[in-house]
Amino acid sequence: MLGGARACRRIERLQALSELDGLVVVLVRPRNPLNIGAAARAMSNFGAHRLRLVNPYAPGFREARSAVGASDLLETAEEYKTVAEAVADCALVVGTTAVRNRALRQPVRRLDEPAGAPIRTQLQTQRVALLFGSEKIGLTNKDFSHCHWLLNIPTKEKNISMNLGQAVAVCLYELARVAPLPTATQDQDEDIEPATAGQTEQITEILLEALRMSGYVKPGTDAMFEKKARRLILRFKLEAYDAKLLLGMVRQIVWKLRLGNKN
Amino acid sequence: MLGGARACRRIERLQALSELDGLVVVLVRPRNPLNIGAAARAMSNFGAHRLRLVNPYAPGFREARSAVGASDLLETAEEYKTVAEAVADCALVVGTTAVRNRALRQPVRRLDEPAGAPIRTQLQTQRVALLFGSEKIGLTNKDFSHCHWLLNIPTKEKNISMNLGQAVAVCLYELARVAPLPTATQDQDEDIEPATAGQTEQITEILLEALRMSGYVKPGTDAMFEKKARRLILRFKLEAYDAKLLLGMVRQIVWKLRLGNKN
Repeated sequence: MLGGARACRRIERLQALSELDGLVVVLVRPRNPLNIGAAARAMSNFGAHRLRLVNPYAPGFREARSAVGASDLLETAEEYKTVAEAVADCALVVGTTAVRNRALRQPVRRLDEPAGAPIRTQLQTQRVALLFGSEKIGLTNKDFSHCHWLLNIPTKEKNISMNLGQAVAVCLYELARVAPLPTATQDQDEDIEPATAGQTEQITEILLEALRMSGYVKPGTDAMFEKKARRLILRFKLEAYDAKLLLGMVRQIVWKLRLGNKN
Repeated sequence: MLGGARACRRIERLQALSELDGLVVVLVRPRNPLNIGAAARAMSNFGAHRLRLVNPYAPGFREARSAVGASDLLETAEEYKTVAEAVADCALVVGTTAVRNRALRQPVRRLDEPAGAPIRTQLQTQRVALLFGSEKIGLTNKDFSHCHWLLNIPTKEKNISMNLGQAVAVCLYELARVAPLPTATQDQDEDIEPATAGQTEQITEILLEALRMSGYVKPGTDAMFEKKARRLILRFKLEAYDAKLLLGMVRQIVWKLRLGNKN
């Protein structure tokens, strides 16, 4: 079946994601268990599984119901007293920030500009820590001092404050995305069989007949409408499957119109 | 001061985000007010402000506390009874899906591959609807039948189910990111006005009537053919002009079929 085959081919293409096995997600002083659960869920979605918490003020977070499909991640999450301990085994430490209104001492990279590539490169050989601050105040300057550089999710000036779970999801999506951006927008439907000119012509003819019988095409204007109808059908850029479908529909309609005329 | 100057320069660079003014975020049958609030918050972060809800089962969602900085967005959110009504003024309708285990009839694009570019291009001149399904079951096949194509956030096979608010955040981040492909092949049809979803729906309805009257659609198979016909018409990728033309043709045919039945 065409639909099934199409779907299969697409699913194959969906497997490849960058490996986030070496990524350590560090939540610093999180307060809301639901946010911790949501962070874990996003990690599970994108293939990260090392969750560390620095001084969480979030009783019962290990049972957070928001961690759909990621309860194992909450169970194995490690707790630390300091940022220093939480990132000790990491070769690169990156802090997240909404920037603005702070004289930052560390370089800031936008997530959608060069931030993903250096992290992915590092991840091939070393562990990388990605730090997220508390819901209210984010990371402090002291937290930043542990970071090689800072990462900013570009947002509108009007509302720069993101929800913690959403910020984790956006960062991990960007890190997990397939590395190279395609150089040209490929038409991904290239494997779909297009209609032949013969099929298109059959549809044009039967459509014209329906239009004649219904009075849409007035006597003497046939030639003009023939061209008009053909161009229309061509602009549909029909697939072979759709051409058959459409042909069947219009044929049935014409059969019924003929029946009506006989009465 | 070096730090200060650096920070200033960085802040300048942070202004530029793609405009999402024409983006319509449609939540279909959402159940959790917190998720609706989280979706609104992400919209506000990335500069989208048209929120529409189809049959929300979420009492009190307009006061959701999760909509930090986005309460105005919840206040002005519009409610609709059907997907068709919610997307009627949009030229491109894109549904989100976790894919897998469904024989999908629509093309699927990965968010991190070519999905962002065509949406951004369309947004320069027309409204685009982005549909998200309910927390439990996502979008149905009937919902999909309103979509030109589907968008998949690439996730690990182990946990493909994303939280609604996080899925919205990830999609809007990708759409708002600075257009990364200056050399990409441009869609050469950019100056042609596409048909709106409302026009497409009109054609679908009148075509269905013709198919019913001609006996192509047998009694009891209406629902299946409705989806089939809608998907077919969407695949035509109609221009506004052709939509009018086709609508006129099918209307005339239906008029004639009615006349035949009266005789």
